[in-house]
Amino acid sequence: MALAVGLIWAVVSIDPAVGGQTGIASWYGRESGSRTANGEKFPTSERTCAHRSARFGSHLRVTVLSTGRSVVCRVNDRGPFIRGRIIDLNPASARAVGLSGLAKVRVVAD
Amino acid sequence: MALAVGLIWAVVSIDPAVGGQTGIASWYGRESGSRTANGEKFPTSERTCAHRSARFGSHLRVTVLSTGRSVVCRVNDRGPFIRGRIIDLNPASARAVGLSGLAKVRVVAD
Repeated sequence: MALAVGLIWAVVSIDPAVGGQTGIASWYGRESGSRTANGEKFPTSERTCAHRSARFGSHLRVTVLSTGRSVVCRVNDRGPFIRGRIIDLNPASARAVGLSGLAKVRVVAD
Repeated sequence: MALAVGLIWAVVSIDPAVGGQTGIASWYGRESGSRTANGEKFPTSERTCAHRSARFGSHLRVTVLSTGRSVVCRVNDRGPFIRGRIIDLNPASARAVGLSGLAKVRVVAD
C-alpha cells in the first residue's frame, strides 16, 4: 500500500504548472553550498526556492495550508530530494510564511 | 535607543518563575554537540529545552503568541545566547508547536 501511495503522490507532484501540487515545504540555508543549481550565488534577501522540475527563473506561489500565508519565490535551485517534500525555501522565502523556525513566545514556569 | 530597549528587554527576561517572559524562541539540533549543559545525551524524542537561567530539571510552558500552540519542556541545557531570544527548543519541542521549519503547502505557478 505504501508503494501505491508513493506512486499516486508522484503522479500529482509532476508539474506545478498543471493545476499545482500539495506536499511538505522545508527551508535550507547556505550550509548546502554557496552556489545554487543554476550557478547563482546563494541569495540572502531575494525570495528564491528549489523545486525538482519547475523551470529556472519561473515563479511559484507557495501557500501554507494551516495559516493561509503565502509567498512568491523564483526557482533557482533543484530539490528537495526527500519523499513527500515538494519545495525547499531559502531563508527569505521561509520567513515570509513564518517557516523560519523562529517565533515570538511566552515562557512561564509549569 | 537600541541599547535602552535591550536593557528593558533584559529586565523583563530575568526569571520565568517570576510572572513569565516574552521573547523569541528558536530551535536547535545535535549540530550543537551530542551532550547538553547538564551532561545528558541530547534527547531525540523527549521534549526538552535550553534556557539561560531556569533550574535544570524544571519544566517551562512555551506558548507561540501568533498561534496559541504551547508545549511543556524540561530544562536540560543553557542558551540561547542571541539577544532577544529567550528559549531554544529541541526538535521534539519545536515540532509540538509547529516550529520545526516544515509545513504542508500548496504550490502553483504564479
